[in-house]
Amino acid sequence: MANIAFLGLGNMGGPMAANLVKAGHWVAGYDLVEAQKMTAAEMGVSVMGSAREAVAGAEIIVTMLPAGRHVLAAWAEFLPAAPKGALVIDSSTIDVDSAKRAHEAGRAEGVLTLDAPVSGGVGGAAGGTLTFMCGGSAEAFAKAKPVLEAMGKRIVHCGGPGAGQAAKICNNMILGATMIATCEAFVLAEKLGLSAQALFDVASTSSGQSWSLTTYCPVPGPVPTSPANRDYKPGFAASLMLKDMRLAQEAAASAGVATPLGAAATQLYALFAAAGHGGDDFSGVINFLRGTQASG
Amino acid sequence: MANIAFLGLGNMGGPMAANLVKAGHWVAGYDLVEAQKMTAAEMGVSVMGSAREAVAGAEIIVTMLPAGRHVLAAWAEFLPAAPKGALVIDSSTIDVDSAKRAHEAGRAEGVLTLDAPVSGGVGGAAGGTLTFMCGGSAEAFAKAKPVLEAMGKRIVHCGGPGAGQAAKICNNMILGATMIATCEAFVLAEKLGLSAQALFDVASTSSGQSWSLTTYCPVPGPVPTSPANRDYKPGFAASLMLKDMRLAQEAAASAGVATPLGAAATQLYALFAAAGHGGDDFSGVINFLRGTQASG
Amino acid sequence: MANIAFLGLGNMGGPMAANLVKAGHWVAGYDLVEAQKMTAAEMGVSVMGSAREAVAGAEIIVTMLPAGRHVLAAWAEFLPAAPKGALVIDSSTIDVDSAKRAHEAGRAEGVLTLDAPVSGGVGGAAGGTLTFMCGGSAEAFAKAKPVLEAMGKRIVHCGGPGAGQAAKICNNMILGATMIATCEAFVLAEKLGLSAQALFDVASTSSGQSWSLTTYCPVPGPVPTSPANRDYKPGFAASLMLKDMRLAQEAAASAGVATPLGAAATQLYALFAAAGHGGDDFSGVINFLRGTQASG
Amino acid sequence: MANIAFLGLGNMGGPMAANLVKAGHWVAGYDLVEAQKMTAAEMGVSVMGSAREAVAGAEIIVTMLPAGRHVLAAWAEFLPAAPKGALVIDSSTIDVDSAKRAHEAGRAEGVLTLDAPVSGGVGGAAGGTLTFMCGGSAEAFAKAKPVLEAMGKRIVHCGGPGAGQAAKICNNMILGATMIATCEAFVLAEKLGLSAQALFDVASTSSGQSWSLTTYCPVPGPVPTSPANRDYKPGFAASLMLKDMRLAQEAAASAGVATPLGAAATQLYALFAAAGHGGDDFSGVINFLRGTQASG
Repeated sequence: MANIAFLGLGNMGGPMAANLVKAGHWVAGYDLVEAQKMTAAEMGVSVMGSAREAVAGAEIIVTMLPAGRHVLAAWAEFLPAAPKGALVIDSSTIDVDSAKRAHEAGRAEGVLTLDAPVSGGVGGAAGGTLTFMCGGSAEAFAKAKPVLEAMGKRIVHCGGPGAGQAAKICNNMILGATMIATCEAFVLAEKLGLSAQALFDVASTSSGQSWSLTTYCPVPGPVPTSPANRDYKPGFAASLMLKDMRLAQEAAASAGVATPLGAAATQLYALFAAAGHGGDDFSGVINFLRGTQASG
Repeated sequence: MANIAFLGLGNMGGPMAANLVKAGHWVAGYDLVEAQKMTAAEMGVSVMGSAREAVAGAEIIVTMLPAGRHVLAAWAEFLPAAPKGALVIDSSTIDVDSAKRAHEAGRAEGVLTLDAPVSGGVGGAAGGTLTFMCGGSAEAFAKAKPVLEAMGKRIVHCGGPGAGQAAKICNNMILGATMIATCEAFVLAEKLGLSAQALFDVASTSSGQSWSLTTYCPVPGPVPTSPANRDYKPGFAASLMLKDMRLAQEAAASAGVATPLGAAATQLYALFAAAGHGGDDFSGVINFLRGTQASG
Repeated sequence: MANIAFLGLGNMGGPMAANLVKAGHWVAGYDLVEAQKMTAAEMGVSVMGSAREAVAGAEIIVTMLPAGRHVLAAWAEFLPAAPKGALVIDSSTIDVDSAKRAHEAGRAEGVLTLDAPVSGGVGGAAGGTLTFMCGGSAEAFAKAKPVLEAMGKRIVHCGGPGAGQAAKICNNMILGATMIATCEAFVLAEKLGLSAQALFDVASTSSGQSWSLTTYCPVPGPVPTSPANRDYKPGFAASLMLKDMRLAQEAAASAGVATPLGAAATQLYALFAAAGHGGDDFSGVINFLRGTQASG
Repeated sequence: MANIAFLGLGNMGGPMAANLVKAGHWVAGYDLVEAQKMTAAEMGVSVMGSAREAVAGAEIIVTMLPAGRHVLAAWAEFLPAAPKGALVIDSSTIDVDSAKRAHEAGRAEGVLTLDAPVSGGVGGAAGGTLTFMCGGSAEAFAKAKPVLEAMGKRIVHCGGPGAGQAAKICNNMILGATMIATCEAFVLAEKLGLSAQALFDVASTSSGQSWSLTTYCPVPGPVPTSPANRDYKPGFAASLMLKDMRLAQEAAASAGVATPLGAAATQLYALFAAAGHGGDDFSGVINFLRGTQASG
C-alpha cells in the first residue's frame, strides 16, 4: 500500500480520498476549507496543516482543484517539498496550457507527472466508478494505474503530457453540442406533430443515434433513468458543462483551431446559465430552446 | 401481387421500381427523362406515356421526385385519374408543409396517402435495404407495408400525415450537427497532440459516442468502412445533407421553432458546398474545418 | 389624379390608402376584415364588395398583404379583371421568389408590375414618410413614383423584378445582426466595468459605428429617442424583425448562399420570441443576452 | 520635454517611439530584436542594453508588446528599476485580465499606470494619427495625454484600470461581426440580382448603415478607398481581427457573458485564417463566404 498525499478535499476530492483510504492506502490530506478537512478526517484521511506537510514522504501526490491557476499555484508551493521520484497526479479538469505547464514544473523538480481528469461526477467519485483520462509518460501511467483503480473503474492512457485534459474536453465538446442538437430535434418534432417516442424510435436505431439520445435522453419517457425524468435535476450541471465547453474554446483559440459548433453550443449554455439555470442538468437546455423556461 | 404505378425513375426511383418488379409486382412507370425510362424498361418496368396512363388501374402509386413542388404538381396531375381507394405513397424527401398538402389533396380525391421518405441512399435503393419512415393513417400504413418491404428492410410507422418527413429531417438535423461537432473534436485533438485513435477510444465508450463517431468516423483509421478511408467519396454527399438541413430549417421557421445548432451546421455545409465540395461525403467537412481543403 | 385600387386595408394599408385619398386620388379599397373596411371608408376610401370590383377601371392597383401566398392568391384573383396596361404595385414584404412570380403573373396578364416594400412602420404609414424600395421596369417605376410620393418621402428604384424585396431583406439582415452584436458589446462592457456612455463615445466615432448604435442605441441614455429609453416598446417589434430575418434566410437557401451570421441572428430572435418577447422592440434582445429578461 | 522609456520597437512601437523623438522628447528604447533596435536608433531613439537600463530615470515608460504574458513579464522585470511616481503606459492590445493585473503590479511598485491600446494600425503609428483608448486614474490620464498626443490625434479616457482594453475589444467585436453581416448581404444581393451599388445606396442611408459599409465597404466600387478596391490588401489583417475577436471572447468567458454573434464571427475569421488568408484584409472574408476564395 502507498503513502499518498491528497490536496483538494471538496465534493469530488473528498470521496476520492476516502476511497483510497478504503483501499488500504495511507492518505495525508489538505484543503483550505475547514469543513472539508473535517469530513475527510472522519473518512480516515490524515489531515495535515499545509500542502507541504502533506506531501512530505509521499510516494504519490494527487491534486483535485477548481482551475489551472489553483493547480499551478499549489504545485509551485508543494513541489520543492515533494520527494524526488514521487508521482504527482492532477485530477482537476483544467485548461490544456496549464496542464502542460504543470508537467514542466514537475519535471524540473524531478517528479513523475500525470494529468488525469475524470468523468462520472460526484456519484462516480463516491462510488469509485470514475473514468480517468490520463496524459503523461508510460512510466507515470504504469505507476498511477493501481492507485487510480481504487477510485475509478476505467483508467485510460490517452498519450503524453496534457493528453488526458485534451481527451476530456474534446469528448465533452462533442457531448455539449450533440445534446443541444438532439434537444432541437425533439422541440422541432413536437411542433411538427411527431411524438418524442416516435423520434426516439427512429433516431436511436439510425444515424441520429448518440449517447445524448440513447443514454441521457433530454425528454421524459424514452430513457427512464435520464435527468429529464426527474425535472432536470443533475446529473451534470449546465454550469459544469459550460466550464468544460469554455476550456475547449480556450484550447481551440490557443491552438488556432476553428470549432464553430463548439462555440455556438458554448454560447447557448452561457445564455442558459445567464438565465439562472446553471444548476439544472445540462439537458434542461431543451426548455430554454422551447422558451418555456422562466428565468431564474 | 399488386398493380403498382411508379412515378420518378431516377437514381433512387429506378432501382426501387426494379425491386418491386423482382418481387413479382406489375409496375407501370413514368419519368420525364428518356434515358431513365429506358433503363427502367430494361429492368422490367412497363413504361407508360404519361403519369395519368401509369396510374390508371393502379392499386398502389409511388412517387419519388426531387422536391415538394414536383410532388404537388405530379399529384395534382394524376390524382383525378387514380382509382378511388388506391394508396398513394410519396417516398421523396420533401418539406413537411408540402407533404401535408399532398395528404390533403389525396384525401380530397378519395385515395389513401402515406409519406414515406427513405434513408439508405443509392446503395440501399439498389440492395433493397432502405429504411422507410412513414406518416399517415394506420390503414394506409398496413396496406403499404408489404409493398415497401420489397424495397427496404425497415419500415417504421412514425405517426399521422407528415410524420415520416418530420422523422427524417429531425434525424438528419441531429446527424448533420453531430458530425460537425465530432469533426471539430478531431481537429482540436490533433492540434493538442492527442491522436485520433486515442480520442476515438475515449469518446466511443463515453458520453461523446454517436453514430457519426462509431459507424461513420470522419478520420481514417478507427472505422475502416467510413468514407474518410476512401478520400471522402460518398456515402452521403454534402449537397444532399445540405438539402435535408435546409428542409429542417424551413420546417423550423414555419413551425416557429428555434434550432440554433441546426442553423449553424446548415451554414457550414453551405460554405463547404459553396467552396466546391458538395459532391464530397458530408464527413469531408473536417477538411474544411482544418482549412486544408482547396476550393473546387 | 389617378383612379387607384387598394387591396389590404390593415395597420399599414389603411393609413397608406388614406394618404392617397388626402392627395386627391380616387381610391377603391377592399379587405377581408369588416372593421378595416369601415375605418378605411371613414378616411374617404370607396370600399368595394370584392377585389375584382375594386380593380375594375383602376389605373393603379396597390396590394398590402401579410405574406407571399396571400399576394399570389390575390393577384391570381383580380388580375383577369384588371385593365390592360394598368400598373400593379405590391408593397407587402414577402419572399423574393413569390415577388418574382407575381411579376410574371402580371406580365402574362398585360399589366405593368412593381414590387415596392416599405420601411418606416405604422408611424411612417400614417405620416406619409415611408421609404419605398422598388423593383421593376423603368417604365413601371416612373409611373409609380408620383403616386408613391403621396405615401412616402423616399422612393428608390433598386433594379428589376424582385429587387425591392431583395434590398429590403438584405438591409434588414444587416440591421438584425448588427443590433445583436452591438447589444453583446454593451453587455460585455458593463461586466468589464466600462460604462455604456464610454463605449458609446468610443464606438460611435470609430469603426464600431452603425445605425443600430448611433440612431437606435440599445441601452438607455446615449440616444434619448431610442426604444431602450421607453422600456423597449416598439419601434420595430422583434416578431417583425424575425419575419424579415426568416425571409432573408429563405432567399439565401433558395439562392444557395451561406449567411452564417444572418442565420445566427435569426435564431436569437427566434429564441427571444419563443420566450414571449416577440412584441418587444427588437433591441430588447439585449435583456435576453443578459439573462435578466423573464420569459413571457 | 520628458524623459521617456519605450519598450517594444516593432512595426507599431518603432514609429511611435520615433514620433516621440520628433516631438522633442528624449527616448530610451529597448527591444529583443537586433534589427528593430537598429531602426529605432536611426530614428533618434537611444537604444539601451536592457529594459531595466531603459527605464532608469524615466518619467514615462511605454510598453508595446504582442500579448498579455509579455507585458506582465516585462513589467515584472523593469518595475523594480522604475523611478517611484513614474507613469507606466501599456499600449499593447492585450486581454483585460492581464491589463488589470499589470495595473495592480504597478500600484504595488508605486507608479502611475494606464492601459492605452491604439487603433489606426501601422499607418496611424507612422503618421501620428492613432486613437488611444485609455483606462486608469484621472491623474495618470492627465499626465499621459500630452505625450500620447505626439503619437495620436485622438486620446480618449474610457474609465478606470482596464477600461481602455475593454473599449477596444468591445468596439472591435462590433466591427468584426458587422463586417461579416455586411458581406453576407452583398453576397445574397448579387445572387438575387440586386447590384452592389443599389444595396449600398439603400443601406447606407437606412438602418443597415455602419462604418463597415460606408467607410470600409467590402465590395469594390461604392467606397473607392476601401481595401476591396485593392484586392483586399490590408488595411486591417484578418489575423489581427481574429486576435482581437479572441481577446473579446476570452474576456466574455472570464466575465461570464454570452456573446453569440461575437463567437460566430470569431469562428468565421478562424476558418478564413485557417484557409490561409490571415494576411488578407478582414473584409476579404466576403470571398470566403462566396466560396470563390481558393485556400492558401
